[in-house]
Amino acid sequence: MEINPPQSIKCKAAVCRAAGEPLQIEEVVVAPPKRHEARLKIICTSVCQSDVTLWRMQGLPAGFFPVILGHEAVGVVESVGEGVEEVSAGDVVAPVFLAECGDCADCSSKKSNVCSGIPFRPRQGMPRDEGATRFTDAAGAAVNHFLNVSSFAEYTVVDVAHLVKVHPAMPPEKASLLSCGISTGMGAALKAADVEAGSTVAIFGLGTVGLAAAEGARIRGASKIIGVDLNPDKFEIGKKFGMTDFINPKEIGDKSVIQVIKEMTGGGADYCIECIGLASLMSDAFLSCRPGWGKTIILGVEKHGSAFSINPTEILQGRSIKGCLMGGLKPKTDIPLLMQRYINKEINLDDFITHEVGFSDIDKAFELLIEGKSLRCIIWMDK
Amino acid sequence: MEINPPQSIKCKAAVCRAAGEPLQIEEVVVAPPKRHEARLKIICTSVCQSDVTLWRMQGLPAGFFPVILGHEAVGVVESVGEGVEEVSAGDVVAPVFLAECGDCADCSSKKSNVCSGIPFRPRQGMPRDEGATRFTDAAGAAVNHFLNVSSFAEYTVVDVAHLVKVHPAMPPEKASLLSCGISTGMGAALKAADVEAGSTVAIFGLGTVGLAAAEGARIRGASKIIGVDLNPDKFEIGKKFGMTDFINPKEIGDKSVIQVIKEMTGGGADYCIECIGLASLMSDAFLSCRPGWGKTIILGVEKHGSAFSINPTEILQGRSIKGCLMGGLKPKTDIPLLMQRYINKEINLDDFITHEVGFSDIDKAFELLIEGKSLRCIIWMDK
Repeated sequence: MEINPPQSIKCKAAVCRAAGEPLQIEEVVVAPPKRHEARLKIICTSVCQSDVTLWRMQGLPAGFFPVILGHEAVGVVESVGEGVEEVSAGDVVAPVFLAECGDCADCSSKKSNVCSGIPFRPRQGMPRDEGATRFTDAAGAAVNHFLNVSSFAEYTVVDVAHLVKVHPAMPPEKASLLSCGISTGMGAALKAADVEAGSTVAIFGLGTVGLAAAEGARIRGASKIIGVDLNPDKFEIGKKFGMTDFINPKEIGDKSVIQVIKEMTGGGADYCIECIGLASLMSDAFLSCRPGWGKTIILGVEKHGSAFSINPTEILQGRSIKGCLMGGLKPKTDIPLLMQRYINKEINLDDFITHEVGFSDIDKAFELLIEGKSLRCIIWMDK
Repeated sequence: MEINPPQSIKCKAAVCRAAGEPLQIEEVVVAPPKRHEARLKIICTSVCQSDVTLWRMQGLPAGFFPVILGHEAVGVVESVGEGVEEVSAGDVVAPVFLAECGDCADCSSKKSNVCSGIPFRPRQGMPRDEGATRFTDAAGAAVNHFLNVSSFAEYTVVDVAHLVKVHPAMPPEKASLLSCGISTGMGAALKAADVEAGSTVAIFGLGTVGLAAAEGARIRGASKIIGVDLNPDKFEIGKKFGMTDFINPKEIGDKSVIQVIKEMTGGGADYCIECIGLASLMSDAFLSCRPGWGKTIILGVEKHGSAFSINPTEILQGRSIKGCLMGGLKPKTDIPLLMQRYINKEINLDDFITHEVGFSDIDKAFELLIEGKSLRCIIWMDK
């Protein structure tokens, strides 16, 4: 049997050509997948805070643009490159920014989720064919990839080390949520912090990641889940994900957040999770955790490049700090477990989807997130 | 049977009356132990770096002096206060700066060694009778306690929560070593870091604490134990405690210690242990540990009150930092296990004793430590 090699595909993509400028939906050409790669037809995608951060960021190297953003998605494998056996055409998969090659020391260890076979770093091209992109625009110029996914396109090419198979019982828009933000938050509680039943958890920043951390703490049976956010609406929203207490730093008078958390928990929370990416908040989280065993989890990418400063005397009291990508979860190993928990009705994913739009309204999805009105807005590619 | 209540005892003590001034051996009166307390006849003691640090420190509150320093020792219980049942006259015990009350949430948890029933903090008096000292000088003035032990005296009074019973097969001078510095270093490897067989360990600072950390890593079967110290003599000394590699920061040309450790370990050590108390070294330790699972243990009390600054991007790669007192060991629970390991000939304590003097030569013991000539100089009280 002769198989025709896959051809280039013309399709629509939301191309970002300069920082902060509205995305332009334009025609691009998506090259066939090469060795280790699969080409996906995206079913749905969503905007994660890192897309917004990069989209807004001034002073990026000129070579960053033009780029196709987007890294939370689900798609169907349309074709695969040479030698790819792990997935085949028709498989439903979630592309993930973090790789799991399965062979390196990190992938072989239970202690790490930071694949060293295909290290995570900013790249404009393919993970195992660096410098090469699979996108070109109508003028024939290369268009860059983003976070190894680039899901704001009808078709994209992703390395198989970045693909997680989606359980057939899993609705695609729910699986899409698990490809970054929600896995990061839930992983922080379930893996990085390893929250125990009866413990106290304080969460700094109640965006999707923070709320998912609350949901993770809830399913572990935490006795007190304290959310900290400047937006008072987050109290009601947080309750859907197990939050028991809420602190609005603007409404605690002369007290500090640290003081209030210490009072609420009798000396400090067992686990503090920073979900924003501000060095000052990392410090608050650290100082709000209990001496003896208090553990601070850092999830946020610091927005201003500031250093996180620790008083060594405070850490000597038995405290610890751990940072992680995707909450310490291994994509191929752990995301399927979360899917199974959703299928078993053990975790709440539904309430994270606050809006849905068609691809042509992708700017609306950005606006909703920036204005703090949405948690996740699902972007359906065929609507 | 009528028991005479214990009386005050007149004895000799090395009193420190001002920062940096030679200790004066003078007569003091040691009051009888009260509730929760025991009075010990010290058999032997040694000088730990914290004694030197405090002895030298300028700008301490006036109320710190006069003080009896010393917190590594072994003694015999001479008498006990009301209601004390845990120890009785004749018991050989090691007093420890850290309490283990046995009742609080921390003592009940495997995760903490920071007793919250009797919290560790600077005190001039007794832990459960704060403000009260049991020492007076010849003029009748109060003399302060130090770190809940004050072992530079023929007799001292210690709270029973700070006493560890010494195994009869354990020579007192070896048990004395375990009451602070060596337990801190070994604990760092065995408990706080929880070093695994085959792993790589980098140790910053090869005083007694650092060498004990090497010994702890050795008994866990670490494959590479890298010591970092400015004193070239430490390479030979370190080999006695399992050190396999040595870095003298003065002898690596243009390279940084971080670079050299990354080269030696293929990307960073699994565990880095800071034993000096310098924020810059804590930062080097952190950056020398491996992404994915690298763990940095902070043992040193920062000498200048500087903050330890962390690049949040580096910690996001799965690294963690933990600080602890006494290496995370619980005094009453864990020190007896180390004694048993010594009795079983599993650990090397003997090579830590480099000198021995009589009490009247205590200044000599200070000099040897300050000049870096000794690891531990045992001070025998009856010589």
